[in-house]
Amino acid sequence: MNFASDNTSAAAPEVMAALQAANTGYAAPYGNDPIMDRVRAKLREIFEAPEAAVYLVATGTAANALSLAILTQPWGAVFCHRNAHVEEDECGAPEFYTNGAKLVLVEGAHAKMTPEGLHKAINFIGRGGIHNVQRGMVTITNATENGTVFFPSEVKALADVARGFGLPVHMDGARFANAIVATGATPAEMTWKAGVDVLSFGGTKNGCMGVEAVVIFDPARAREFELRRKRGGHLFSKHRFLSAQMEAYLTDGLWLRLAGQANAAAARLSSALLAAPQTSLVHPCEANAVFAAFPRAGHRRAQAAGAAYYLWPGDQSMEGPDDEALAARLVCSWSTTDADVDDFVALIRG
Amino acid sequence: MNFASDNTSAAAPEVMAALQAANTGYAAPYGNDPIMDRVRAKLREIFEAPEAAVYLVATGTAANALSLAILTQPWGAVFCHRNAHVEEDECGAPEFYTNGAKLVLVEGAHAKMTPEGLHKAINFIGRGGIHNVQRGMVTITNATENGTVFFPSEVKALADVARGFGLPVHMDGARFANAIVATGATPAEMTWKAGVDVLSFGGTKNGCMGVEAVVIFDPARAREFELRRKRGGHLFSKHRFLSAQMEAYLTDGLWLRLAGQANAAAARLSSALLAAPQTSLVHPCEANAVFAAFPRAGHRRAQAAGAAYYLWPGDQSMEGPDDEALAARLVCSWSTTDADVDDFVALIRG
Amino acid sequence: MNFASDNTSAAAPEVMAALQAANTGYAAPYGNDPIMDRVRAKLREIFEAPEAAVYLVATGTAANALSLAILTQPWGAVFCHRNAHVEEDECGAPEFYTNGAKLVLVEGAHAKMTPEGLHKAINFIGRGGIHNVQRGMVTITNATENGTVFFPSEVKALADVARGFGLPVHMDGARFANAIVATGATPAEMTWKAGVDVLSFGGTKNGCMGVEAVVIFDPARAREFELRRKRGGHLFSKHRFLSAQMEAYLTDGLWLRLAGQANAAAARLSSALLAAPQTSLVHPCEANAVFAAFPRAGHRRAQAAGAAYYLWPGDQSMEGPDDEALAARLVCSWSTTDADVDDFVALIRG
Amino acid sequence: MNFASDNTSAAAPEVMAALQAANTGYAAPYGNDPIMDRVRAKLREIFEAPEAAVYLVATGTAANALSLAILTQPWGAVFCHRNAHVEEDECGAPEFYTNGAKLVLVEGAHAKMTPEGLHKAINFIGRGGIHNVQRGMVTITNATENGTVFFPSEVKALADVARGFGLPVHMDGARFANAIVATGATPAEMTWKAGVDVLSFGGTKNGCMGVEAVVIFDPARAREFELRRKRGGHLFSKHRFLSAQMEAYLTDGLWLRLAGQANAAAARLSSALLAAPQTSLVHPCEANAVFAAFPRAGHRRAQAAGAAYYLWPGDQSMEGPDDEALAARLVCSWSTTDADVDDFVALIRG
Repeated sequence: MNFASDNTSAAAPEVMAALQAANTGYAAPYGNDPIMDRVRAKLREIFEAPEAAVYLVATGTAANALSLAILTQPWGAVFCHRNAHVEEDECGAPEFYTNGAKLVLVEGAHAKMTPEGLHKAINFIGRGGIHNVQRGMVTITNATENGTVFFPSEVKALADVARGFGLPVHMDGARFANAIVATGATPAEMTWKAGVDVLSFGGTKNGCMGVEAVVIFDPARAREFELRRKRGGHLFSKHRFLSAQMEAYLTDGLWLRLAGQANAAAARLSSALLAAPQTSLVHPCEANAVFAAFPRAGHRRAQAAGAAYYLWPGDQSMEGPDDEALAARLVCSWSTTDADVDDFVALIRG
Repeated sequence: MNFASDNTSAAAPEVMAALQAANTGYAAPYGNDPIMDRVRAKLREIFEAPEAAVYLVATGTAANALSLAILTQPWGAVFCHRNAHVEEDECGAPEFYTNGAKLVLVEGAHAKMTPEGLHKAINFIGRGGIHNVQRGMVTITNATENGTVFFPSEVKALADVARGFGLPVHMDGARFANAIVATGATPAEMTWKAGVDVLSFGGTKNGCMGVEAVVIFDPARAREFELRRKRGGHLFSKHRFLSAQMEAYLTDGLWLRLAGQANAAAARLSSALLAAPQTSLVHPCEANAVFAAFPRAGHRRAQAAGAAYYLWPGDQSMEGPDDEALAARLVCSWSTTDADVDDFVALIRG
Repeated sequence: MNFASDNTSAAAPEVMAALQAANTGYAAPYGNDPIMDRVRAKLREIFEAPEAAVYLVATGTAANALSLAILTQPWGAVFCHRNAHVEEDECGAPEFYTNGAKLVLVEGAHAKMTPEGLHKAINFIGRGGIHNVQRGMVTITNATENGTVFFPSEVKALADVARGFGLPVHMDGARFANAIVATGATPAEMTWKAGVDVLSFGGTKNGCMGVEAVVIFDPARAREFELRRKRGGHLFSKHRFLSAQMEAYLTDGLWLRLAGQANAAAARLSSALLAAPQTSLVHPCEANAVFAAFPRAGHRRAQAAGAAYYLWPGDQSMEGPDDEALAARLVCSWSTTDADVDDFVALIRG
Repeated sequence: MNFASDNTSAAAPEVMAALQAANTGYAAPYGNDPIMDRVRAKLREIFEAPEAAVYLVATGTAANALSLAILTQPWGAVFCHRNAHVEEDECGAPEFYTNGAKLVLVEGAHAKMTPEGLHKAINFIGRGGIHNVQRGMVTITNATENGTVFFPSEVKALADVARGFGLPVHMDGARFANAIVATGATPAEMTWKAGVDVLSFGGTKNGCMGVEAVVIFDPARAREFELRRKRGGHLFSKHRFLSAQMEAYLTDGLWLRLAGQANAAAARLSSALLAAPQTSLVHPCEANAVFAAFPRAGHRRAQAAGAAYYLWPGDQSMEGPDDEALAARLVCSWSTTDADVDDFVALIRG
């Protein structure tokens, strides 16, 4: 029972098989391998974007930080939700890659920026002419850090605000597949048709070993991305091993199938928890994470049985009365089984 | 016949097997996986350095740039050979990661800095007090970009110069295994015993898929490395897949065996070329690369047969008389076969 | 009637006279002029800090950004008030000079951080180990952007919070003289005795032409400051002209006399405004700025008469009913006269 | 007898008078003062460039580093002479402001790049595609660090090389006035007519207190300059004091008159030295600096008499035989008198 994060899971067998298959003979390095040609074509097809530039990196932080760096100047403000990964979990990688852009934090329940909140934040920045930082760009996370999702219409509403100020839009899609499965939207609807300029398209959390694609819908920005990637040390010499993961991930809808499994596990978990006594959801369960509060006694049983997950927020204490509710983050992945879920809920129920 | 680079090779079967073996169940992310504990212990043992801090990243540029960043201030000079990878092949990653340190180029035949050249360069910088950049650090590449190697006594001579100015020393060991095999030195003799503070210990070019270790002999510098690695987007969530590669690489001397194969292939190639008419070596062949000049006719035959390698320098033209000698870089890897070598030489001989 | 900012004022005659006096013969450049020796001694005496390192720059943004850069790493959080000059008015200079540190905004009425607010903010950052930015430093503005001041006991309360987390403390004293005059504290009480490590000691806003001192109470940080100043282009060659301004400013208590004039003008202005109908103060008037709200009709008369000042916040409209109150920022300087104040108030009263 | 540098001189009386005259009443800050309007107009007239953007900063390093930052990307190569001020005397300010661009050093006698040397350097960089830094820009110093000058035809020859590669051109004109006087060229001929895009137009070394103009011939680059200047802490609040210096400097040809005095003093000095026994020039004397070698005995007499200047290079020793020649840098300024020169030469002759 491991609900600590989607990154504690293994890679999907299809991905591993593709790595093995790619490991024959010689291949051109640095993204010039023939598998990458197929990946490029496949992503363009999936996104209905024949002109899009496509690059691979190995970590989500790299995908995000490099994307931000091509969309804002160093003196720009990057508008993001207060709980965005770029703000909370990247040790300042966005500031490093952008050479000091300022992340401006937007409020919104369940880790979702609202158009009103975004408009207010953008409007405030830039009131001071040259003395302030300048309005730079907007980044939206989908699925969010709280396990919620944006529908395309919601993305568009945010992107419209950005457009109104002339700002480009990035989407942190570390869990993009989960959002697509959750909403039923097409990849195009969720991105460029809604106003997204650059997407971090996650693979690692959803069954890959370590690969993320960056999809740049306006190819004019592509060359700068290439240079920044190289300069950041993120261009792989034996690139075929990134390509092979991504090809497998995109083949026969594996990426959607894996996300579907993760989302289904989370739905099963949240439903079962809601049916348990004294248990409530902290955030709506819309993708592959469940944020739930349940009595400390349940936590004690789960932890004693070796269940791995985080109290969320982290400053809650396991010391205290049995019946006090503590909130937890429970992340499901492609590899979470029904048995994992059922065993865990049984522990919580006691 | 692919002599384009060691990074066009596949990964060794042992490395791929280890990846598969690691792909079971859940594992703690971000370097907290149990395989990494074994890697740490193993590298400390190999380097006879029980206190050394050990980290993994996926690219050589990341290993180098992060290492430099913990050894120099932004206003420091990084003394390196004019042909060093950090100067010529990383698109300014050292400048990026150090926030603008200046690479000061040292001369020396066959890509080897000399103690005299190094002393002169260091002495020159820092003559101007606060107006100049300050003396920062020294970085030595072993094996070098020209296929030559430093013996421990040579490393020590350079490090002694650095020490005389109070400067720390980094070794770019993207081809460290090749240097160890070529010299017969122990890893400890080649590094901290000779005055090296931080080593980029390469795996990728020598049979791994994409993994480099950074070995920091003074653990006081370790925490900063961790933060810089994270901030640079180089901390892997599914870290076990880096660990597994490195564990396999270090097990049963695989790293030395693979380097031995590459060096032997290069020796066979250089000997056979030298025996061919009108052929000469541009640099001594001491590791896994051969820099040789031979008539354009030979190049024509080799290229027609599909042999992959680079003219070196790159501005030589295939247009011209048959008997004019053009220089080439021919890199062997663990997977280069005797047949590859013999077939190639046969083409050159015509 | 110019209340736009203290930087629209002229320089004090004593400062101009000192510039003229310094303009004879040759002088050693780059801070090696004999006047600077006297400035150093004088500031050490004023601050009762015989070991302090003292440097001059020409702008407040330079003083602040360089100070921050020697107190935090690039991955550090800089805790400051939401309305601090470093956050709102320097176009990201702190991010630029620190290579991407993150300003974390602390709440507090009237532009004053509270110890509770500061503690909460620091505690929150750093909960995530290596994934978050790290706790870096605290910067306090005194007098604040809202014309309020911190007494030494209040500074100490904030600094104690910082110390509890091992963090250094900077004070943005662009209006330090105004705070000293307002509180009656000694410079030492307001700074190092209260826990301040580095002070930006303002001259420009208070009667100088363009000079700020940075006082570094722990001289171990001094060398880095020198290098960062030079690298930032802030080391003056004809440095005597910075020194001369600062010497005049410190002589015979000129700095306190000028601040006293500015504070007295603001007190006169705030009192007179409070006595006017339908007028209120937005913030307590404790130093040289008055934040007051009064009817639009008063604004119309003042602006028609050529009074210079800012509506604050800036998004208020001059269109609308006569009797609606609009808030204004009215900054007094050493050169504000009683007549300026009285004429302005007469206009407001109508 | 002070020949240490042109920055040890006082400011010209006209400049000081202008500062005093500007010090009345209130003035709009940050470059919005009416004097700056006149400066802008005057510089556009002098340069026959009605569209040029004009900004003021207080130091030459700021002028240069900010200019470079708007002309190259962080991954660009800045081609400059090995002895350029940006390379040798700014403690890495160019690397800091550009976020890590690489200065690539071009050879050439007497601190003058040659078109051939420049072509070779540019050609070499960029051979490696994305792996190298990219070709960024060219910067030319006039008058040079060795007291020589470029004629417009020479500037054009260098700029033509740059243009051939699509690169913009900066001129470091810290001693621009000296070059103009020396060559008789018009400012327009020396700059945009010869292919210069951005000029650092020096005032400080030539009789001002501390002011440099940046003249941007293509106004499309202006907004970025403004933001970088502010972010660098180089935008003055009491800007009128920069404006006033520059206005005085430009009025009635003061800038040319002062440079004429300095050049004439240097010419007198070099002629007299050449007439002395055992004395030679190290570089041609074309502007306001004399690089001459003369016997150690002469140095001893000069130094005993208090003459200030630098041995150049700085590693020469005053210990040794009387008749050995040591080289010196002797810089004349607007304030150097005939008596200074004659007294010095008398000491050298003994």
